[in-house]
Amino acid sequence: MSRTDSAAAPELDFGASGLVPVVAQDSDSREILMLAYASPEAVERTRETGLAHYYSRSREELWQKGATSGHVQNVTEVRVDCDGDALLYLVEQEGGACHTGHRSCFYRTLDGENVGDRVFDPDAVYE
Amino acid sequence: MSRTDSAAAPELDFGASGLVPVVAQDSDSREILMLAYASPEAVERTRETGLAHYYSRSREELWQKGATSGHVQNVTEVRVDCDGDALLYLVEQEGGACHTGHRSCFYRTLDGENVGDRVFDPDAVYE
Repeated sequence: MSRTDSAAAPELDFGASGLVPVVAQDSDSREILMLAYASPEAVERTRETGLAHYYSRSREELWQKGATSGHVQNVTEVRVDCDGDALLYLVEQEGGACHTGHRSCFYRTLDGENVGDRVFDPDAVYE
Repeated sequence: MSRTDSAAAPELDFGASGLVPVVAQDSDSREILMLAYASPEAVERTRETGLAHYYSRSREELWQKGATSGHVQNVTEVRVDCDGDALLYLVEQEGGACHTGHRSCFYRTLDGENVGDRVFDPDAVYE
């Protein structure tokens, strides 16, 4: 890349937790699919493989999205926010991002209205 | 609201930190504008006023976006993720969301390329 507006790679700030929040957005529809967390290793694996990797806080391990379900995310671009303490993965989502079977994890309003699309049956995907 | 797919309001999980990450997305362009954090009070104030409120971790205080800069966010909808531990504010953004003058805080790629729009001069807005 030789664009004149290129600069040094932004420093990432993983803070005390060692993780940064990551927003995954569908690069075509621009729908927000999920929010998860990444460790330095998860960012590096994402960069190397082109597949979205995260760090599971509950399982305490590196995690490739879709490794179990097949619902992988092909990452077209990774963006960094102004403070370097949040990331945006622009992705092509296979199937659905949410373990409930919805396309997006953000399928409910604060009042409980369901505004999301259910795209798969989780019982058929997760055993 | 009387839609048949309505249900009880989702419970929010503010975790050990007492905060949830919030993604702010432009409700028209669907651009991701910023990621910040909300306390229960910030969520309640957002709901009451229709203006995006957050909790500043560095200043340790409730914060109305745009209170200083005038770059407020009119919130058209708040969504909750599947686990109740992340929020999505759909907003109409006045001016720019980022203190650097960019429309979005996510104006750089991981490699340092600037892919964002600068919409105001921060020196003229913040004294």
